Amino acid sequence: MNDEEYMRFALQLASTVSGQTSPNPPVGSVVVKEGQVVGFGAHLKAGEAHAEVHALQMAGDNAKGATIYVTLEPCSHHGRTPPCADLIIEKGISRAVIAVTDPNKKVAGRGIEKLKSAGIEVELGVLEAEGETVNAVFFHYTKTKTPFVTVKSATTLDGKTATVTGESKWITGKAARQDVHSYRHTHDAILVGVNTVIADNPKLTTRLANGVGKNPLRIVLDTRLRTPIDANVVTDNEAKTWIFTGKQVTKEEIEPFKAKDGVTVIQLDDEKINIDNVLQILGSEGIMSLFVEGGAEINDAFLQQKKINQMIMYLAPMLLGGKTAPTSFTGVGFESLTESLSLKIKHMEMIDQDIKFIAVPRKDETNVYRNN
Amino acid sequence: MNDEEYMRFALQLASTVSGQTSPNPPVGSVVVKEGQVVGFGAHLKAGEAHAEVHALQMAGDNAKGATIYVTLEPCSHHGRTPPCADLIIEKGISRAVIAVTDPNKKVAGRGIEKLKSAGIEVELGVLEAEGETVNAVFFHYTKTKTPFVTVKSATTLDGKTATVTGESKWITGKAARQDVHSYRHTHDAILVGVNTVIADNPKLTTRLANGVGKNPLRIVLDTRLRTPIDANVVTDNEAKTWIFTGKQVTKEEIEPFKAKDGVTVIQLDDEKINIDNVLQILGSEGIMSLFVEGGAEINDAFLQQKKINQMIMYLAPMLLGGKTAPTSFTGVGFESLTESLSLKIKHMEMIDQDIKFIAVPRKDETNVYRNN
Repeated sequence: MNDEEYMRFALQLASTVSGQTSPNPPVGSVVVKEGQVVGFGAHLKAGEAHAEVHALQMAGDNAKGATIYVTLEPCSHHGRTPPCADLIIEKGISRAVIAVTDPNKKVAGRGIEKLKSAGIEVELGVLEAEGETVNAVFFHYTKTKTPFVTVKSATTLDGKTATVTGESKWITGKAARQDVHSYRHTHDAILVGVNTVIADNPKLTTRLANGVGKNPLRIVLDTRLRTPIDANVVTDNEAKTWIFTGKQVTKEEIEPFKAKDGVTVIQLDDEKINIDNVLQILGSEGIMSLFVEGGAEINDAFLQQKKINQMIMYLAPMLLGGKTAPTSFTGVGFESLTESLSLKIKHMEMIDQDIKFIAVPRKDETNVYRNN
Repeated sequence: MNDEEYMRFALQLASTVSGQTSPNPPVGSVVVKEGQVVGFGAHLKAGEAHAEVHALQMAGDNAKGATIYVTLEPCSHHGRTPPCADLIIEKGISRAVIAVTDPNKKVAGRGIEKLKSAGIEVELGVLEAEGETVNAVFFHYTKTKTPFVTVKSATTLDGKTATVTGESKWITGKAARQDVHSYRHTHDAILVGVNTVIADNPKLTTRLANGVGKNPLRIVLDTRLRTPIDANVVTDNEAKTWIFTGKQVTKEEIEPFKAKDGVTVIQLDDEKINIDNVLQILGSEGIMSLFVEGGAEINDAFLQQKKINQMIMYLAPMLLGGKTAPTSFTGVGFESLTESLSLKIKHMEMIDQDIKFIAVPRKDETNVYRNN
């Protein structure tokens, strides 16, 4: 096994805990001595031990003279746990292989400096791109202080989300719909427009195949506060719900929602809800990742402001036709092709009979992650 | 190498000549003796030698006691060439492995019977599904006497074919657009609606990367004969053009087109062009394969009548949005999901940055090919 193979294992450990470490990044670590894996670990939950701590603990005395692989630069500051860089030095590690540096200002190269000063050989950038992907949410949030936005869509092969008469249950198959729940599970918040609440009365909770799952915070964009007071997201108390409204909504209209447990109405100073203002507020409340489940007007609003960091798309193998059949992005749209949001396909797979893509904006990838 | 591996080689030979053998099917053949390939061939062009003839010629005396692999049942009748079944017997072949039977009434099992009567061991159905795919056009035409219809679409990830202002050049990349020409090359005819002729004035000729290419017959659906008399498809003489019109068009309107070389106006007895009538006429004229390049109303007309045998879809990695941005299938559409055309994804690949799918109707596949 070479550096890349050990790092791939460390990245796999990090992916496994993706979504459960917020507000911390998912990190994996492997300790190798004389070609033998002597320890490995991952950061499981904020406030608990970092990946390096678990890996070094497993390694015990074998850490002396060993190589440690970490998917993210080890921390150098006292946070809720002591600095990992200090522990690596103390345990006698002789070489550290790191995928990416930590953009967090408290770390940002200082962890690496600390290791080097202690005489540890440091190799940076092994599987860097994969390391950036695993940490995409954390990096985006650290740099922008707003959540990483993932938009989901599910359409037919001809881009329709329903028939001309509005029938949409179901376009995609059971397995694809189940897959969506794994994203709810790993996101801090889920967002829909009020029209979706009125039309479908969704619960927006996480229903994984095995029955468990973390419910995300539920966000409803609702300019004129038309959310029914008996909607599931208002009454079921299964997760918190934040309803964003425009400034034209009156105190009297908001009043009934105050009595509802776990429901908060957040009134913006906008006549028409500005996506950027919503993202700023969510960011300041520690929401690092947002899963947007539509509808089409909401998707278009995120598209117009170029606030999409990732698309999860499901395509069902059917053709519906119809000039008036709805599509996944409506609204005003872009007038010219050069204005369009240009994406890069990162992943493509079949989920039963449906196709799934993961696509990320080209700019995001080149500017935010790679050129910084 | 086992039977499947030799048959896969024979199927590869058949695919290579796909589109150049019309009205005959593409066929490949391999002769194997004592684990050695001693001959192989393909049917290159209608009127010329069949695949078995080439393969047996190459094998020479080695054919005696050998196994022959053929992608389609050998013919048993005197057509433009003598029956292949007779030649196989004459050359002393001891075993014949065949992918699929020939649905042509003149053959339909008789070739196999002839071989068996001569004491040759016959194995049928090796890589049958692949054999049906290679012969899809031929099988469809033989059974329905109408062309096998392939519809092409090219959209953004959100299903749009242009921006809200109509800008569409170019949604897909150069490599994907080049790929389209390989389909023009292998189809007997290409079909568009008159709106496409008016809007884009296309040549509808085949421009392969290497400069060569067979031009398909050009078909324009034009109910009221609005094709401009100076359109490329009328004046350039690079391929024949058939314009289908409704019955309301007058003789005076048709007159100017009569003077144009290679242009034929075919008047239907319909007020609104009926796709099925067009396909019947094309079939009776020996057109076995039809490539439909839109626009969206034409695509929808084929969809409504469930006359699509194959979809070739290109998806460009961009999002355009816009409620009024056009999609690949418009028209009236289906009212309920159960009416939709249900497809099966047969192939998925990246062409540069674009995604390409090949999908076939589920019914077509199960009913026409597999259950017959």
